Amino acid sequence: MDRTAAILLEHGSGGRLTHELIERLLVPHFKNPYLERLEDSAVFEADDRRYCFTTDSYVISPIFFPGGDIGSLAVHGTINDLAMAGGRPLFMSCGLIIEEGFMLADLERVVASMGRAAREAGVAIVTGDTKVVPKGAGDGVYINTAGIGSIHYAGRLAADSVRPGDSVILSGTLGDHSAAILSCRQAFGFATTVLSDSAPLHGLVESVLKTSLEVRCLRDATRGGLGAVLAEIAARSGCDILIDEKAIPIKDQVRGICEMFGMDPLFMANEGKMVAVCSPAHAVSVLDAMRAHPLGREAAVIGRVPGRGRGRLVLQTIIGGERVLDLPSGELVPRIC
Amino acid sequence: MDRTAAILLEHGSGGRLTHELIERLLVPHFKNPYLERLEDSAVFEADDRRYCFTTDSYVISPIFFPGGDIGSLAVHGTINDLAMAGGRPLFMSCGLIIEEGFMLADLERVVASMGRAAREAGVAIVTGDTKVVPKGAGDGVYINTAGIGSIHYAGRLAADSVRPGDSVILSGTLGDHSAAILSCRQAFGFATTVLSDSAPLHGLVESVLKTSLEVRCLRDATRGGLGAVLAEIAARSGCDILIDEKAIPIKDQVRGICEMFGMDPLFMANEGKMVAVCSPAHAVSVLDAMRAHPLGREAAVIGRVPGRGRGRLVLQTIIGGERVLDLPSGELVPRIC
Repeated sequence: MDRTAAILLEHGSGGRLTHELIERLLVPHFKNPYLERLEDSAVFEADDRRYCFTTDSYVISPIFFPGGDIGSLAVHGTINDLAMAGGRPLFMSCGLIIEEGFMLADLERVVASMGRAAREAGVAIVTGDTKVVPKGAGDGVYINTAGIGSIHYAGRLAADSVRPGDSVILSGTLGDHSAAILSCRQAFGFATTVLSDSAPLHGLVESVLKTSLEVRCLRDATRGGLGAVLAEIAARSGCDILIDEKAIPIKDQVRGICEMFGMDPLFMANEGKMVAVCSPAHAVSVLDAMRAHPLGREAAVIGRVPGRGRGRLVLQTIIGGERVLDLPSGELVPRIC
Repeated sequence: MDRTAAILLEHGSGGRLTHELIERLLVPHFKNPYLERLEDSAVFEADDRRYCFTTDSYVISPIFFPGGDIGSLAVHGTINDLAMAGGRPLFMSCGLIIEEGFMLADLERVVASMGRAAREAGVAIVTGDTKVVPKGAGDGVYINTAGIGSIHYAGRLAADSVRPGDSVILSGTLGDHSAAILSCRQAFGFATTVLSDSAPLHGLVESVLKTSLEVRCLRDATRGGLGAVLAEIAARSGCDILIDEKAIPIKDQVRGICEMFGMDPLFMANEGKMVAVCSPAHAVSVLDAMRAHPLGREAAVIGRVPGRGRGRLVLQTIIGGERVLDLPSGELVPRIC
């Protein structure tokens, strides 16, 4: 990593440069076993109970988009990071960085949306902070949320729990969030009815975890998409992951948008989709549990862990070939979350 | 509150407009008893233990300043919010919003400083997030930290615990942080040797809380300064607070800077100073405990709660008069933290 270089948009993409930045520059200075697991949430024990703790900042543009806004997204995103650790969300913080000149009416719309999303998910926003930066030093509003959850699952959810033979199950269609954001960016300006899939996944996770103690790993497929998430699990577990292109659910409209912009839905961001890796013996019950939940109706088994391998993500293409998928480099859609 | 208006810099000042924004626009939408206490940290129970949870975003300019930088400040500030709830800091999150073009070497300097500050304070940065915004949509780097602490104090620390007769004790000199920031802003550019007082106060708080179960309320005097903090305690408790101008410790150099810029040190920001309100019977032991700690050597009893009153902060001036101090309006020094 070249320390004389400058930050690029790509450092925030969730792809190769983001990982490099985190692993080479951030983690070494913060050095501790909680952080070094590099999961979506840190897990810690207190009084024999396990809790999880996570944070995310939201800088999405535009702040209002089809299917949601920066407020609901900031609540769902942090709930989902807790949920992927098996956590039931308890408390959340809200840090606002507002640009001078931002309209109070828009701020209230965002805050009302956060409040609604939190109530619907049964989580309380208990502490907050408000900063204002001068015009030109921000862009409307940025939101940080941190969250605390309690873990009741007795299994161990982590990328390095994945074993040969495991099944890979996706909870629904890919790319809806990215497509919705693209659809309302002025520079594109095409008409579409695709909505962001932004949703809180803790209920879906609870249903899944009830079925089996052999769920190995959960991830929501946000920045970098399913591709980045699975490539990361493969690398951490040391196992290859083989996914079947034709098994992956994608809406026709989203597929059309991807073709128009030359984008791969595997690497597009989602805000209400998760992937579960579980033992093959429990794949059917996990799949059934997902499909029985409103947020998992289109769930599908999309792949498996064929053997120990070399920690690569391999795509079995529709035409029958195999292709190794790397962490994406470059920024597909900046400020997607 | 006029919803058709726009956000002003003053909404972030810690003064009147900040309070109005929080109490009229944010709290009603987030509605819950934890938040409604409006303390620096939310306090919650889990398994018969009390914990505190807080967040702050840091948008200070410049990011490197005499006595610290945005990284150490982001660690100290959140530790201090936990400490004011009587919390021993346990875990912290780090959310970075980086502007495209920011130098990696500067980022590393900031992150190294965060790591150092956290290690020195015995707190682990266990989870994080990194976002990049395009050039012109940020300013170098903004940092959000959230923190979790465990509370071992059996008393109840809150503004509305304050009672007639209580003593008001300040841990040291006022205005050092604001003066240091002013000194290095290009537009001012005068020479001074004043350093920011940025420091973690949890050790000082622990010493203070050991002495008495009748410490009523602790506050670090950040944005808005001692004036804003005491005006708020007075308003919440319904008691008047009377402070003695000549008892308030201020460095000569800081006093000079204040006179030069027509600023009142009572309303200048501090990042390593706290005020404690306690029962008069324990004022001496609290004062002694502060003075015995390296961060409280210049502590002083600066005021008292004369009676029930009308929830006002009253200053006894050096020349003998009395003046009611309101929450400041206007922004003294924007982006001070």
